[in-house]
Amino acid sequence: MDTTNGSLNRKLRMALIGGGQGSFIGRVHATAGVLDNRAELVAGALSSNPEKAKASAPAYDIKPERAYTSIDDLIKSEQARPENDRVDFVSVATPNHTHFEIAKKAVEAGFNVICDKPMTFDFKQAEELVATVEKSDVVFAVSHNYTGYPLVRQAREMVKAGELGEVQAIRSNYIQGWLRTRLETSDQKQAAWRTDPSKSGAAGAFGDIATHAYNLARFISGILPAEVSCHLRTFEEGRALDDYGHAVIKLQNGGLLTVTASQISHGRENDLFIEIDGTKGSLIWRQENPNEMIFRRNGHPHAIYTRDGNASYMHEMAKASCRLPAGHPEAFFEAFANVYRSAYDSMALRAEGKKFEKVNTIFPNVFDGAEGMYFIQQCVNSSKENGAWLPLKYSKART
Amino acid sequence: MDTTNGSLNRKLRMALIGGGQGSFIGRVHATAGVLDNRAELVAGALSSNPEKAKASAPAYDIKPERAYTSIDDLIKSEQARPENDRVDFVSVATPNHTHFEIAKKAVEAGFNVICDKPMTFDFKQAEELVATVEKSDVVFAVSHNYTGYPLVRQAREMVKAGELGEVQAIRSNYIQGWLRTRLETSDQKQAAWRTDPSKSGAAGAFGDIATHAYNLARFISGILPAEVSCHLRTFEEGRALDDYGHAVIKLQNGGLLTVTASQISHGRENDLFIEIDGTKGSLIWRQENPNEMIFRRNGHPHAIYTRDGNASYMHEMAKASCRLPAGHPEAFFEAFANVYRSAYDSMALRAEGKKFEKVNTIFPNVFDGAEGMYFIQQCVNSSKENGAWLPLKYSKART
Amino acid sequence: MDTTNGSLNRKLRMALIGGGQGSFIGRVHATAGVLDNRAELVAGALSSNPEKAKASAPAYDIKPERAYTSIDDLIKSEQARPENDRVDFVSVATPNHTHFEIAKKAVEAGFNVICDKPMTFDFKQAEELVATVEKSDVVFAVSHNYTGYPLVRQAREMVKAGELGEVQAIRSNYIQGWLRTRLETSDQKQAAWRTDPSKSGAAGAFGDIATHAYNLARFISGILPAEVSCHLRTFEEGRALDDYGHAVIKLQNGGLLTVTASQISHGRENDLFIEIDGTKGSLIWRQENPNEMIFRRNGHPHAIYTRDGNASYMHEMAKASCRLPAGHPEAFFEAFANVYRSAYDSMALRAEGKKFEKVNTIFPNVFDGAEGMYFIQQCVNSSKENGAWLPLKYSKART
Amino acid sequence: MDTTNGSLNRKLRMALIGGGQGSFIGRVHATAGVLDNRAELVAGALSSNPEKAKASAPAYDIKPERAYTSIDDLIKSEQARPENDRVDFVSVATPNHTHFEIAKKAVEAGFNVICDKPMTFDFKQAEELVATVEKSDVVFAVSHNYTGYPLVRQAREMVKAGELGEVQAIRSNYIQGWLRTRLETSDQKQAAWRTDPSKSGAAGAFGDIATHAYNLARFISGILPAEVSCHLRTFEEGRALDDYGHAVIKLQNGGLLTVTASQISHGRENDLFIEIDGTKGSLIWRQENPNEMIFRRNGHPHAIYTRDGNASYMHEMAKASCRLPAGHPEAFFEAFANVYRSAYDSMALRAEGKKFEKVNTIFPNVFDGAEGMYFIQQCVNSSKENGAWLPLKYSKART
Repeated sequence: MDTTNGSLNRKLRMALIGGGQGSFIGRVHATAGVLDNRAELVAGALSSNPEKAKASAPAYDIKPERAYTSIDDLIKSEQARPENDRVDFVSVATPNHTHFEIAKKAVEAGFNVICDKPMTFDFKQAEELVATVEKSDVVFAVSHNYTGYPLVRQAREMVKAGELGEVQAIRSNYIQGWLRTRLETSDQKQAAWRTDPSKSGAAGAFGDIATHAYNLARFISGILPAEVSCHLRTFEEGRALDDYGHAVIKLQNGGLLTVTASQISHGRENDLFIEIDGTKGSLIWRQENPNEMIFRRNGHPHAIYTRDGNASYMHEMAKASCRLPAGHPEAFFEAFANVYRSAYDSMALRAEGKKFEKVNTIFPNVFDGAEGMYFIQQCVNSSKENGAWLPLKYSKART
Repeated sequence: MDTTNGSLNRKLRMALIGGGQGSFIGRVHATAGVLDNRAELVAGALSSNPEKAKASAPAYDIKPERAYTSIDDLIKSEQARPENDRVDFVSVATPNHTHFEIAKKAVEAGFNVICDKPMTFDFKQAEELVATVEKSDVVFAVSHNYTGYPLVRQAREMVKAGELGEVQAIRSNYIQGWLRTRLETSDQKQAAWRTDPSKSGAAGAFGDIATHAYNLARFISGILPAEVSCHLRTFEEGRALDDYGHAVIKLQNGGLLTVTASQISHGRENDLFIEIDGTKGSLIWRQENPNEMIFRRNGHPHAIYTRDGNASYMHEMAKASCRLPAGHPEAFFEAFANVYRSAYDSMALRAEGKKFEKVNTIFPNVFDGAEGMYFIQQCVNSSKENGAWLPLKYSKART
Repeated sequence: MDTTNGSLNRKLRMALIGGGQGSFIGRVHATAGVLDNRAELVAGALSSNPEKAKASAPAYDIKPERAYTSIDDLIKSEQARPENDRVDFVSVATPNHTHFEIAKKAVEAGFNVICDKPMTFDFKQAEELVATVEKSDVVFAVSHNYTGYPLVRQAREMVKAGELGEVQAIRSNYIQGWLRTRLETSDQKQAAWRTDPSKSGAAGAFGDIATHAYNLARFISGILPAEVSCHLRTFEEGRALDDYGHAVIKLQNGGLLTVTASQISHGRENDLFIEIDGTKGSLIWRQENPNEMIFRRNGHPHAIYTRDGNASYMHEMAKASCRLPAGHPEAFFEAFANVYRSAYDSMALRAEGKKFEKVNTIFPNVFDGAEGMYFIQQCVNSSKENGAWLPLKYSKART
Repeated sequence: MDTTNGSLNRKLRMALIGGGQGSFIGRVHATAGVLDNRAELVAGALSSNPEKAKASAPAYDIKPERAYTSIDDLIKSEQARPENDRVDFVSVATPNHTHFEIAKKAVEAGFNVICDKPMTFDFKQAEELVATVEKSDVVFAVSHNYTGYPLVRQAREMVKAGELGEVQAIRSNYIQGWLRTRLETSDQKQAAWRTDPSKSGAAGAFGDIATHAYNLARFISGILPAEVSCHLRTFEEGRALDDYGHAVIKLQNGGLLTVTASQISHGRENDLFIEIDGTKGSLIWRQENPNEMIFRRNGHPHAIYTRDGNASYMHEMAKASCRLPAGHPEAFFEAFANVYRSAYDSMALRAEGKKFEKVNTIFPNVFDGAEGMYFIQQCVNSSKENGAWLPLKYSKART
């Protein structure tokens, strides 16, 4: 086990919900969860179809007796096990519209949760989930995985340390092209549920990816939003949800944040990029080239910061998020695993009966998840009202 | 003389207004104007200060007798010369608030004009100038010089040829950092007039650079705007004009254009960049690396188009805008000179008594200039009304 | 288990040699070996120090009874286990000078081997090891991990498919800067053994990294070398081995390959990059940005190939090496794991008693390892003779 | 006139040799020569064909009476003019094999010369030309134009100021692809003379472009070479001269310089790039993106230096080589013009009877030209002897 696990002298036990044959994100959770050997995957409810649930288990090394077919089964059976053999947390990797029920039950049963994003189907569910978590003492993480990149954490630490001065303008963008045609009309599962309001929620591109861009801006800057004006578009005719959109957000400090999301930009792959302007410096980071960030200050050469765990400019949190020396690129899986790893630190503290941070955690948490759902709701509503300014202050937001 | 000059068997005669000692843009006009040896600079009103006007003349090879002190002097004296020795056009490189009077007089006197941008102090002046030009038969160009880059022209031709399909989304940005501090309070001339409403007009960053970003989007796409919602900010306390702003523009075809301008982004130099999404392809171009453009289509490798006058993918207009082989970079001066060169083609036609295009010219013209002034006016007004949607249809806009 | 495992209906059992506390590359092997859940790490000889060997085991989930202190122990004890509980392969992650003995014993005992590079201390050992492997039927892989990058495999397939025409010129470079100062005189383990001839062998930079650059060129092109002329330098005074060097290699087809390696280029991290010129096209790939490769053909736009498992331009072998969609970067660990994964395919065939390729494997093998040792030997000798041309034909080299 | 012209109160008078209709480089010289308005083109011997010489003159604004048909004519007629109307310098833009005779006559007649590169047909001619120049007091520049880029000059000043420490390794490359096919067999003039030994000299790619790469390394580093080992190749069958080559050069300080030149790398345009490793820092610069240079030092963020005339890190010589603010790209023409501009400074001093530097000039001079011819000769000879080490010390080389 990685030594940052503190004194918890064992591996955490993980259960995976979703991830049955044909799933994509389930495998990512399973891989990220164990990458650092601090947890083992011991149980799962991989599918609601009993046969598929059983059949999918071997690929995850889940024993038949712990291959459940529902969260209810899982909870009941795991609770019947002795505490030292019971799962510590469940990872929820099912389609959006099912997150809420699963996560709520898991929390109420006392299991820690790592939930895919968007956290729930709508903001109402999110608020209820927040209340549930607040009543519990579980660790609840949301897989806004892009926050796990070492240089994203470095950016956050730089802002906190004042290296950018006061942040006044942020431009956060998430540009893809894969839904340029109506893939959902063919047999493409990923496209199908993402463009189906009954599964995806009220927003398409804005739910799927603008939430990441918004979360990234909030995570790095810590600056609270005031109001939002949003403009969603559906450029592919016949599609039920937005595939393009743009939000203008007034920040409480007087600054301006713009969020752009596209699923219809030809050839753009997964281009999440953010530009942050502070009174003392500016930053640019791009997910497709994640081991590099550019920090600029007038009068100085532009500085390329790389993911260098030995560099004097790197903050401790960022250094601790690196596994390999500079120049040996780390990427998506490692960032995802960093979110897990940080949640594990809190789980270890909980397991030892110690206090742990709930709001300003280094991993995205239930409040971030709820803020994301609020963002989606207000964006959709503003867009319906031709971009009317709607409030965006979420009372429990991180700073 | 360059052979594209058609049959005009002589060089055009240029007069420069502004550009006296200490000027920056005057020298750019003078250099660009003669770069291809199709014109010679023979007269000027380099300064309203008579001594300075005289003293500045030798550096431009202007003879003392043609070193005037005002546009009135210039017009009067030049008109007194025989036609075959009279200036053909005047380049207006003075501060914004003086453009209108100078340009209008020149047009009324029958001289062709190449006017710096923004074209006038406000939209009212612009409309009056349009009317004046329409009554005349002069060639009137506005130095939205970024349209002169070969790959920008290539982008325009690609859109026209349908290579991008229907353009639905455009993101045009102009990010600078040089006004991050209040340079205008020190002895920095460029900063001083740009932040002074009496000289610069109603907008700061939006007048100075967002107009370029807007013009670039319009020039390449040809798509007409419907309405604008704008949000300007002044982040440097005490500054009289905006130094940051963002406009959302509904396009008449249902698309969305966003324009962002910043003068306060640390270390950003002159970062005009544009992303264009069409139903068949997407484009990215960045002014700071102007010899390269990326064209993407789903299912194809991303294509890097370079400024290659021999390449089969290049349109004729773009090829004709190249002076050097691929890999031998061309840059700002050459792009500026391309605007001049294209205006010269029209001037040559006029000189020969032939018809020439007035609206959809390859060089930015008086209508583009007026559209830019309308954009500024509507953005400023929308921003004052908290981003209210205001019309942005300009009746004489190019397509 | 990943379904590409063929019909082998179980996970492979891995043993790790080396990797005790303080090791770097041991952890990389352990992570890569299990990344796809096709193997489990069940045994190890993590250190020759018995206490350290035991103490290191829990971090790898190795049970105390399988935490050995030597390869001899490991072999003896594992052979005593029933076949269905015995390790299938050993990964050798110890310092260079110990590889030979460990690997040879493992092979002779019938275990498959994945050996770190350089494969042995010198070419003589390498030849002996080759002979040993040839007498056995084990799978023997060498961790030239950079060949595991999907776009490197794509490059190889493109060459094989004739997309570059005949390859005539290759420039392969590996530029680092971390040994710019004499780190080895401080307490830096990685630097200490790499600059110690008794542990590293006859070459420093050329053994450590030029071998990778050479292997990469050979792997992608398949073109056989004829002769080498080499020039090694030790720029840090007092260092015992080369920290910079350059080799010119005549290829058997008349082409030219140059290999450059540096450990003393300030701020260069791990910059392995290769340029390949064929009669029909040219390629560039750079390890620090591994999800992108540029393919150029005169008369065509430059093509950026990305790691896109759905792209029509991608060959099957490259597609099969991707785990994530395009735009979701994969990196060092995944490439390393691809080498393991490919070796597993052969191990599965062996376990099932089927035939498997020995020379032109998709993973680097014992012949590649030997060719690398021959390269080092001839380079060192050539350099001693002022760059004299020495033969570089290795009789068992892949094509 | 630019004020850096010192006290010379007039424009210099330029004559152009070569540049007749169909020429490429003649127009570049003409444009660069007058870009800053410090010279005017008044005379020419544009072609040895009298009709063509006359016909070409108007495009350069050369009056018929000064449109000569030979250097002899030009010299005779110009010398007959009063001194204050006589050309100050001649620019030689003819094919390589004619440079020597023209330049020598011009020098002997007392005219300053700006000569295209390679300076002569062979080294013997070069030595004779050096002797001729040494006997005279003319200013003699050679258009190794890449030295004119502001960031190249910045690199040179950084080395001189010790910012890189001692330079130990340099890799200088010039990669093109345009001669991948035998263009010379079609009607392509540029290809035809460059591949014809009777016009181009003993080398093809090495004469045409490796000389630039070598000159760049020498110009920036100032380090003297000791010996060279070279390997030339002709990859296009039937071509008379090398189209690819590689030279290894031992430097007198113990360092290593490698020079690679290619004309057969598909799609590569004009990719001159250089990497310089010093004991204190390393630099990278690439001609195709000339407004940016990366400076790296271990332990520091990588620094992007841009062509910023206001930046504190820029040396005076580099600042003085900028015409536009940072972010407004300058390129090939401006760099070429910088070579002219620097030569003009010396011409002005000469015209005023003052002393001026002859060897370590900021512009490439006759000694650089001769060193380039020596480099070509020794490379060709070494290559013929299978890469034998040949001396490369040129006694009059700059430092």
